[in-house]
Amino acid sequence: MTESRHLGECLDGQRFWNDVQSLASIGALQPKGIRRLALDDQDNQARLWLVEQGRALGCQAYYDAMGNVFIRREGKAPELAPLLVGSHLDSQPQAGIHDGALGVVAGLAVLRTLHEQGIDHLRPLEVVAWTNEEGARFTPGASGSSWFAGQRDYHAIVSTLDGSGIRFGDALDDCLELLKEHGLTYRPEPFIPHTFLELHIEQGPVLEALNKPIGVVSGIQGVNWYEVEVEGQANHAGTTPRQVRRDAFDGAHEFVSALKATVLEQDDDLRFTIGKFSLWPDSVNTIAQHAAFTIDLRHPTQSVLDTLDARFHDLAKRQWAGCDTSLKVTSHVAPVAFPEHLLDVLRDSAGRYCPGTPELVSGAFHDAIHLAHVCPTAMLFTPCRQGLSHHPDEHIEREDAEVAARVLADAAASLLG
Amino acid sequence: MTESRHLGECLDGQRFWNDVQSLASIGALQPKGIRRLALDDQDNQARLWLVEQGRALGCQAYYDAMGNVFIRREGKAPELAPLLVGSHLDSQPQAGIHDGALGVVAGLAVLRTLHEQGIDHLRPLEVVAWTNEEGARFTPGASGSSWFAGQRDYHAIVSTLDGSGIRFGDALDDCLELLKEHGLTYRPEPFIPHTFLELHIEQGPVLEALNKPIGVVSGIQGVNWYEVEVEGQANHAGTTPRQVRRDAFDGAHEFVSALKATVLEQDDDLRFTIGKFSLWPDSVNTIAQHAAFTIDLRHPTQSVLDTLDARFHDLAKRQWAGCDTSLKVTSHVAPVAFPEHLLDVLRDSAGRYCPGTPELVSGAFHDAIHLAHVCPTAMLFTPCRQGLSHHPDEHIEREDAEVAARVLADAAASLLG
Repeated sequence: MTESRHLGECLDGQRFWNDVQSLASIGALQPKGIRRLALDDQDNQARLWLVEQGRALGCQAYYDAMGNVFIRREGKAPELAPLLVGSHLDSQPQAGIHDGALGVVAGLAVLRTLHEQGIDHLRPLEVVAWTNEEGARFTPGASGSSWFAGQRDYHAIVSTLDGSGIRFGDALDDCLELLKEHGLTYRPEPFIPHTFLELHIEQGPVLEALNKPIGVVSGIQGVNWYEVEVEGQANHAGTTPRQVRRDAFDGAHEFVSALKATVLEQDDDLRFTIGKFSLWPDSVNTIAQHAAFTIDLRHPTQSVLDTLDARFHDLAKRQWAGCDTSLKVTSHVAPVAFPEHLLDVLRDSAGRYCPGTPELVSGAFHDAIHLAHVCPTAMLFTPCRQGLSHHPDEHIEREDAEVAARVLADAAASLLG
Repeated sequence: MTESRHLGECLDGQRFWNDVQSLASIGALQPKGIRRLALDDQDNQARLWLVEQGRALGCQAYYDAMGNVFIRREGKAPELAPLLVGSHLDSQPQAGIHDGALGVVAGLAVLRTLHEQGIDHLRPLEVVAWTNEEGARFTPGASGSSWFAGQRDYHAIVSTLDGSGIRFGDALDDCLELLKEHGLTYRPEPFIPHTFLELHIEQGPVLEALNKPIGVVSGIQGVNWYEVEVEGQANHAGTTPRQVRRDAFDGAHEFVSALKATVLEQDDDLRFTIGKFSLWPDSVNTIAQHAAFTIDLRHPTQSVLDTLDARFHDLAKRQWAGCDTSLKVTSHVAPVAFPEHLLDVLRDSAGRYCPGTPELVSGAFHDAIHLAHVCPTAMLFTPCRQGLSHHPDEHIEREDAEVAARVLADAAASLLG
């Protein structure tokens, strides 16, 4: 290697892909896919696998109060805040092998390349695996990254229960004990990293449609979740004349039409989804007394979400088909725009391997949305077939993933100095 | 009494109301309402109560292969086909006391009045109680009347099971055995009545709103039931751009809008109800793969139902929001228009007690819809509070019910000759 800016070109693609497969053997499902629920045995074994790989490269392993694991390659200036690169190792119950894991293994590939090339960088580099990103066992997810970034309270996190009544805190204690037994160094408190970079599969169809191996992620959409209730009057479908009906289905239908008209006034980045809908008493010949549905509303710009939120609430004040409606916000996460100076680093690196690299906004949440609150943060996406994830059929092309890892390596090198 | 045409004026209102209360004690719920599921002990006791009342008036009691009970007051011309007057004695699990029962007790009141007045009529009169009108224990309902009218197969009826696996045929055998023990005369086959008259509570809000004690029912709406399926593609609500979505909820919403637009082109008699609606996988942040809903469509005129049926099927051939839709008819009952000559008899009688008696079409089914296939048939409605039935709070005013019984008596007298 002649120049550290081209670290990615030296990355051993075969070794990287071998790592992907090795990690996928932990919690493997037959015939394919994985199951590594947060803080279960498989998830903990994945942590130890990462520690083992890092130590073989002369790195030091750390863990914190949330079970987040950090593999540190020391810099010539150890007093500098480290560059963090990583993602998560936990999975959905019936998952593909790349969601989260790919970002951790790509970070490991950067470590391997620096080690093999014998590069002494100024700033420390840490590969991180955040605890419980998926939220499949303990809800909500992103426990490790949200605690680390000061976004969620420790006690709230550890008191959640899984489906069999096991406390997050108890499962976490077992994990921390295991990491302690394996000689990792404990860090009781979060710290402020220099930068966080996360490579992740897109979990959407955009890059595949563009036939591009990577995309620079310029931010993460904000999301509002709503629950809507419509109150009508149950009555006989045959004997109740049209004029005296208060049909909750009709009310919901008219309200949805108004919501959709409002949504269509916005740009194409807006995503509006009604994923749950129910009627009561849900009988073919009874006019519905009650309708309930959810709205998942996403946009990269907070002001657009705010405008729609106000419109939605205004619309909910009216009666629809004679029915009263109510609208309640059940979740709100603000959009994040990643900083331009960091996007420039990714654009530079990406352009070297993929001219005309597209930029896109993430529609899904990632650990990066929390890290963005404490340090410059950005993401790279690589396509997955048909946008499918959270399923054993999740699939990526090795060639795409290698390009993504090389871009990550170049970007890391330029940030490490 | 000076003239048989005014039989209703001689009807003993107090005695009639006492009968209503006596019958309501069989299967009484606390604090109010009844539970007489078809062919259960209470329903059978109600049959025996009716037989006992009839015999005290010198009438003969008959039963047929479906457990229908007939209380016959002989005519001077016994060879003439009898006038049938009645309804049903069975109820919903948590029911009011008048649904069905009022029509039987009103028939009994006509018998009582003829008896007390010592009137010898030409044509025989039979008060009938049809088996399992409600369909609450054995589905579908109207078993007795539909079998009697040749509309439904005996073997199909007796092979249905109730919720605890008891065969209709076995419950029926117990009932027939009981009726035999009590000395009723068996009629193995249905016969063709001269006329069938049924008094029933409206189970709708029209008469109450008009402040009228009775209404002449000019027919029964026909009904089509449909099941609609919409097939989209499940996807992540955040990562899937608007342009590539095939959202089954969106498809269902657009399809419903088109259906409603078609429905609104029709007259106010049309009743269109979507009472069931579901999404799959029914998750707040997943685009729906599948939507399913039902349609209950009613109108008094077959040609209107046919026109809409063709329109609905045409609309279902299109894609909606990129989704395929399918529409299946799950039930169809043709509308019935009661014959004018019989309606004139009811109009005459009704006008004597209630000038300006309104006419309306029944939105609910009744035993009369089946009898209309074999003999001239018509109905009288009396209002129930807020249209409520199938509930212990079902309520009628005694004064209204008395008027209805008097009109029924006058109409019967004029038909008996």
